[in-house]
Amino acid sequence: MDLLTPRIFLTFPLPDVCLTGSMSAVKLEECRQHIRAQLDSVVDFWLKYSHDTVHGGFFTCIGKDGNIYDELKYVWLQGRQVWMYCRLYRTVDRFRKPEILKAAKAGGAFLRKFARVSSSSGQWKCAFCLTRDGKAVKVQRSIFSECFYVMAMDELSRVTEDQDMQLEAEQMMEQLIHWVRVDGSGLGRPQLPGDVPTNSMAVPMMLLCLVQQLSEDRRGVEQKYAELGSWCVQQILQHVQRDGAAILENVSADGSELPGCLGRLQNPGHALEAGWFLLQYAAERGDEQIQTTAIQKFVELPYESGWDKAHGGLFYFLDVDGHCPTQLEWSMKLWWPHSEALIALLMAYSQSRKAELLQSFFQVYEYTFSHFPDPAGGEWFGYLTQEGKVALDFKGGPFKGFFHVPRCLYMCERILDDLLANSITFITIVVVKGTV
Amino acid sequence: MDLLTPRIFLTFPLPDVCLTGSMSAVKLEECRQHIRAQLDSVVDFWLKYSHDTVHGGFFTCIGKDGNIYDELKYVWLQGRQVWMYCRLYRTVDRFRKPEILKAAKAGGAFLRKFARVSSSSGQWKCAFCLTRDGKAVKVQRSIFSECFYVMAMDELSRVTEDQDMQLEAEQMMEQLIHWVRVDGSGLGRPQLPGDVPTNSMAVPMMLLCLVQQLSEDRRGVEQKYAELGSWCVQQILQHVQRDGAAILENVSADGSELPGCLGRLQNPGHALEAGWFLLQYAAERGDEQIQTTAIQKFVELPYESGWDKAHGGLFYFLDVDGHCPTQLEWSMKLWWPHSEALIALLMAYSQSRKAELLQSFFQVYEYTFSHFPDPAGGEWFGYLTQEGKVALDFKGGPFKGFFHVPRCLYMCERILDDLLANSITFITIVVVKGTV
Repeated sequence: MDLLTPRIFLTFPLPDVCLTGSMSAVKLEECRQHIRAQLDSVVDFWLKYSHDTVHGGFFTCIGKDGNIYDELKYVWLQGRQVWMYCRLYRTVDRFRKPEILKAAKAGGAFLRKFARVSSSSGQWKCAFCLTRDGKAVKVQRSIFSECFYVMAMDELSRVTEDQDMQLEAEQMMEQLIHWVRVDGSGLGRPQLPGDVPTNSMAVPMMLLCLVQQLSEDRRGVEQKYAELGSWCVQQILQHVQRDGAAILENVSADGSELPGCLGRLQNPGHALEAGWFLLQYAAERGDEQIQTTAIQKFVELPYESGWDKAHGGLFYFLDVDGHCPTQLEWSMKLWWPHSEALIALLMAYSQSRKAELLQSFFQVYEYTFSHFPDPAGGEWFGYLTQEGKVALDFKGGPFKGFFHVPRCLYMCERILDDLLANSITFITIVVVKGTV
Repeated sequence: MDLLTPRIFLTFPLPDVCLTGSMSAVKLEECRQHIRAQLDSVVDFWLKYSHDTVHGGFFTCIGKDGNIYDELKYVWLQGRQVWMYCRLYRTVDRFRKPEILKAAKAGGAFLRKFARVSSSSGQWKCAFCLTRDGKAVKVQRSIFSECFYVMAMDELSRVTEDQDMQLEAEQMMEQLIHWVRVDGSGLGRPQLPGDVPTNSMAVPMMLLCLVQQLSEDRRGVEQKYAELGSWCVQQILQHVQRDGAAILENVSADGSELPGCLGRLQNPGHALEAGWFLLQYAAERGDEQIQTTAIQKFVELPYESGWDKAHGGLFYFLDVDGHCPTQLEWSMKLWWPHSEALIALLMAYSQSRKAELLQSFFQVYEYTFSHFPDPAGGEWFGYLTQEGKVALDFKGGPFKGFFHVPRCLYMCERILDDLLANSITFITIVVVKGTV
């Protein structure tokens, strides 16, 4: 069947919805093929350049053409790479390869051996970065190194069936919950009278991600974290502000708007990422109300407010009242918000079949693939100017590793597989109508 | 005498050096007038918009047209504004105005009342920022809030002749010296095996600045800090690396190059700022060797390597081996490196009379005044793209206050006053030659 020729629909007028559906199916098939090839190429890049065969773990400061320009090992990125390798190995047949498993295990061993440092309070913290041979260099006063440690350990335990590792993931998770919900003093931040408790989007978003990670196909664990999952969702929903007209990155602990730049900050990429976490949560439970809120408030809204109408692409930061954000990088176009937007828009479309969401997906797709990938050197550039020019030309750095790009491609490929499995049936019907 | 007509030098051929000198005198007089007008205008801007008459202290988050977009009070900028007001009041006749003294005192009182917080080690730290009414929000694990506190207290004590304030400045200075030279654990950073002791340019540079501040016209204090001043100079000179071919921002404690991005980082603005601190130090002592090193290594070298040949302006960060820096803002053009460059180049010229330095000063002058000042709203924009477009349009923010711009204009005006006092004599001689 010649799916690529729209001739038949011109000869036989069909309702708009059919035309849109079938045209989109052709485009979506092209997307799928392209995304699949991109994922293969990106995996190859990291397999080729990032493995430290001497000390274990991964190099993540990787230049334009694969050169290592710094040997520091950033723990966020070590954990994320272990997770990503395991997820691909476990769920995608063509990545079930010994070298991927071997790398994931070596990365996991490096993390377990070196990432944890004892904090001044006696609690375990994870370092933010390590020397090549594993000496801790820096510890952040936040929870994220630990979050990615949990992700890595849990996913690795699923591949290796190592119960100790699963236990360790859950122990670290308890520590995280304690810091977030009971007492954060172990994080090392001094308690100051002007530092009011803040609900930053990243925190409930990451915890919800971990709840989903730990709970998948584990009935007991799912029950254990059910209340936490629900709490995370409520915390995320508190970021819907201004009578539903905006997602704000930071709100007070009781869900009201904070003063100043902090309170007015918008981070469209984060909102979109939270959007697809919420959509997954809604789908698991068949919760239409959360699904509707996720689509309207965490997908459509940040996409509309975050899109640069002049130059295309998603802004990194915005101020809800139109002031200039104080972050120097506010107008830059970063790879990861675009990665999150692709997942969020495609997932929202797959759940709702709203044609506008697919159009938005195509717009982000077009911008993303014409700006970020580097066909010459492999992988994606991460940081563009507002106008879309490459501003930093490395492929990996302190915050860009083997994570957002492959996760995006992997998620989109899966959603497209599902969508096209349905669409092809649909198109078959259309073709039959046309030839009658 | 008509200084603006170069006719006479065309009629009577003179050696190149005279022509350069007299042409420059005309241009320098234009510069002086322009800089003087700019300084008046910038002082007016901050007098008009930044004073908090309710709680004391200064607003520093000030938008394009003078609007306050955030009420947080950043301690670096509170201290710097107190210092700048006092310095202008004390040394420039036209700024010896009651409203400037009143504002400086109110800022000083706000700092003394609210900036200091007791750290976990029991030592006094200064907060990084405060709420509008003075509650501490955040404390950094570095020494800079305390440095600007010392600057403010010492300069204010010179204006008010308040001995307690001077004593307090010196007490805080002792604390700083202890952290830098004896034991830094009170700063709150965990001691980690991979975190090797690093000599970061900013630290000896700031301490040298404070030594000069505290010592001025105080014989006993000068002797007290003489050894520290000499140590700071040696620490700064350790940043001359690669056989004298580069200034590196971070070196090891024993003065060797550090690995990775940290070790390869260049910050041309910092190097230039260190340059004029060294030139002041050399001038006070008549030390020609330090003067020569300062000019060649800390003025000419960072100017040459830091200047963007394609678009003009000084880069914020560079990697000495030509890798892409990982700082997202590396290619931006910021107001403060240009402010430091103007002072450094003009001071270097005034000490050496090397014509090339004056040419470089004119190049930076031309770029700076055609890009940063906002004739419509007053003050300067702070942050431009690599191409010179305004990227963040506010006049004050968490790091841009009443400091670099007025300090630059004030220093340049003083140097130009001195230079032109000499040049006019020189031109008179030339004119006499021409009319004989």
